[in-house]
Amino acid sequence: MERPTPLSGFPEWLPAQRIVEQRVLAKLQRTFELYGFASVQTRAVEPMEHLLAKGETSKEVYVLRRLQADAGDDSDARLGLHFDLTVPFARYVLENAGKLQFPFRRYQIQPCWRGERPQEGRYREFWQADIDIVDKDGLPPHYEIELPLVIADALRGLPIPAIRMHVNNRKVSQGFFRGLGLSDPMEAIRVVDKIDKIGDDGVGKLLASTLGATGDQIEACLALARISAPDASFVERVRAIGVEDELLDEGLAELAAVVMTAAEEAPGLVLADLRIARGLDYYTGTVYETFMDGFEHLGSVCSGGRYDTLASDGKSTYPGVGLSIGVSRILGALFGAGKLTATRETPTAVLVALPSEDDRRACDRLARRLRERDIAAEVAPSAQKYGKQIRFAERRGIPFVLFPGEDGPQIRDIRTGEQVPCDVDAWEPPAADRVAGIVGE
Amino acid sequence: MERPTPLSGFPEWLPAQRIVEQRVLAKLQRTFELYGFASVQTRAVEPMEHLLAKGETSKEVYVLRRLQADAGDDSDARLGLHFDLTVPFARYVLENAGKLQFPFRRYQIQPCWRGERPQEGRYREFWQADIDIVDKDGLPPHYEIELPLVIADALRGLPIPAIRMHVNNRKVSQGFFRGLGLSDPMEAIRVVDKIDKIGDDGVGKLLASTLGATGDQIEACLALARISAPDASFVERVRAIGVEDELLDEGLAELAAVVMTAAEEAPGLVLADLRIARGLDYYTGTVYETFMDGFEHLGSVCSGGRYDTLASDGKSTYPGVGLSIGVSRILGALFGAGKLTATRETPTAVLVALPSEDDRRACDRLARRLRERDIAAEVAPSAQKYGKQIRFAERRGIPFVLFPGEDGPQIRDIRTGEQVPCDVDAWEPPAADRVAGIVGE
Repeated sequence: MERPTPLSGFPEWLPAQRIVEQRVLAKLQRTFELYGFASVQTRAVEPMEHLLAKGETSKEVYVLRRLQADAGDDSDARLGLHFDLTVPFARYVLENAGKLQFPFRRYQIQPCWRGERPQEGRYREFWQADIDIVDKDGLPPHYEIELPLVIADALRGLPIPAIRMHVNNRKVSQGFFRGLGLSDPMEAIRVVDKIDKIGDDGVGKLLASTLGATGDQIEACLALARISAPDASFVERVRAIGVEDELLDEGLAELAAVVMTAAEEAPGLVLADLRIARGLDYYTGTVYETFMDGFEHLGSVCSGGRYDTLASDGKSTYPGVGLSIGVSRILGALFGAGKLTATRETPTAVLVALPSEDDRRACDRLARRLRERDIAAEVAPSAQKYGKQIRFAERRGIPFVLFPGEDGPQIRDIRTGEQVPCDVDAWEPPAADRVAGIVGE
Repeated sequence: MERPTPLSGFPEWLPAQRIVEQRVLAKLQRTFELYGFASVQTRAVEPMEHLLAKGETSKEVYVLRRLQADAGDDSDARLGLHFDLTVPFARYVLENAGKLQFPFRRYQIQPCWRGERPQEGRYREFWQADIDIVDKDGLPPHYEIELPLVIADALRGLPIPAIRMHVNNRKVSQGFFRGLGLSDPMEAIRVVDKIDKIGDDGVGKLLASTLGATGDQIEACLALARISAPDASFVERVRAIGVEDELLDEGLAELAAVVMTAAEEAPGLVLADLRIARGLDYYTGTVYETFMDGFEHLGSVCSGGRYDTLASDGKSTYPGVGLSIGVSRILGALFGAGKLTATRETPTAVLVALPSEDDRRACDRLARRLRERDIAAEVAPSAQKYGKQIRFAERRGIPFVLFPGEDGPQIRDIRTGEQVPCDVDAWEPPAADRVAGIVGE
């Protein structure tokens, strides 16, 4: 066959990049587990009617069919690949409600698929890392405060740019638009969500044409959208606009609690930003969008919110709150900018040199003794001259070469050339060399 | 929506089962890395012409289309989900050959999809854990000896039944059938591969009808298929049949090396079994199938072989050898038989009890101090009576509850009821309780 070419929108990493991804995912995973989130993986497919019920992204769904499906066999006819991890998780909760303990904390790290036109930060196959907390029939608001802190902990210490989370609350927007007397508060949210694309003027015209908003109403909507603050000062600024509504009061109190706690526990992380809306209809409380310093043009790299009605089986509802890290979006951008790499492209810490092919079994046993102490080792592929074997290690970034030798093994740090006698059952690599690490710019 | 029901052939695990899967995969992954295998993940999709070129499974491929694809936009029209991890890896090697170092050792743990009729051990979505070593233009046979030892190491220590790997070599079968004078040795391999399904008689009839084999030739083929041994004694038994062929000699020597090394390094693991053929055409040397004690009816749980011509771009070929563990097949069977479970269904080791909602921030900080020392902790969801908070922990298998208390915190092992004062910055859970473990029968 001819040399294949990449498929646009379906990124794949080279081994060193994959090591970076593994380290990042391991950090996320361990942090999520430290907070008591259990891992869930759902199948890649969902029934189409379930995917389409959630609207909006319907046109971007990949539908499956079996190549040789018999006519009349429609057992696969109605399956599509999931476009996010929230919709499959809501289905998983309903399906297994009797076997889960609520409130249920879960994380989920898997690929998603959307048939969108590929562009920077937008792929057709992309990995998401989600956390959600779902309860039965009611969900206390303190979880909306906790989730941003989990994300901050998960990303802390990784060599990636700082993030800033912009937070709003649907009750604020909805209560404000209702108190203002607009006929359809949900439609107003969708219109104001377009402000980054169409600007203040565009939003004003759309509010007038679709909702019949007056000049004063439009001005109030735009004033609300202009408010942002790293602390609770936003509350007074909203009140100063002069709109009165119970739901608005509730939302302001919830949003203030999120912002104030975050300001103490993770200074600089969270900003109240009253223009944040999130397109999806199912959000009902706090909504989150996150931007990475220097990469704001990517759009949000970690989004989510509270949803009260996504999962319901008629008898019970399962309200939840979740955040989703766009792993591929973050890594793709940092790889593309040359800002993130690994210290080597293989897990191997020690190459065992091979004097002659007859020594292979003995060298295999030396390698085994290292592995038994959790040191990754492989034996040279062939008994070339030692210079070539050292070059084999160099090309991969393997830091050490072990020479068997008749007077006992010696180990060489190929970066310094230093070579010393080595007790194979006691020698330890420096901590930084034991496993491949990641390096930011 | 109504309560959803499972999709046949698309298994999903409950949280405790998922913890088992995570532990098993972590063991496989770490072992592979100790042997120097680098992680690779390929996209879920391949061009259909690439999937179909590998024959055999073509009718089981899932084809994708975008729900709202424009007429005339065929950019996705020719994509299908991969049915194994070998074919995508071969494509990855060709595509990135200039950026990889050879010999290239990689592992890959991902789902695959086949539209087969679901039955025990056969799913439509299933996880495989593959290792392969690929070289450029030539691949020394010592890798065919190494791979079974890696698999044995990876599964050793896990609470699952013992495995036995049945090994053959395509050169033995092909050389034998050629030396015997059969017109189409490859076709003979495919016929003898059916022996478990159609028996000796069926194979004999098929050899006669498709290849015109004589009674003596059929008898020799069946005699070969009956030979198996845990050591090199099979060589003499093959020679005793009296077929002479150079390729046969080469295959016997290679197979004897695999079996003899394994007998020393991992006694009981490997059996030479001359009926093993593997259906796939691309194997050219050693072939492997693996059976799990007490679960032989599942078929092979770890298969693979050497392939010399799977990846070629016209200028270079990239011969390789690989083995693939059927993770879903193994776990599905052991879960179904009730032989494998986790010590708890959450990562949480400590529940921090909540005296009143006003104490939440203080309790969050206690939990944080535990997390900073890598102990998973969560705070109770609400300030119920302590009895109910303890039941919350019990239902999830969380072993410890930490009570803040005015005279300093106390920690309670809820299995024994023992409760003692606790220095939150020094207390350590027993090693077996720090993370959820897995338990075999």
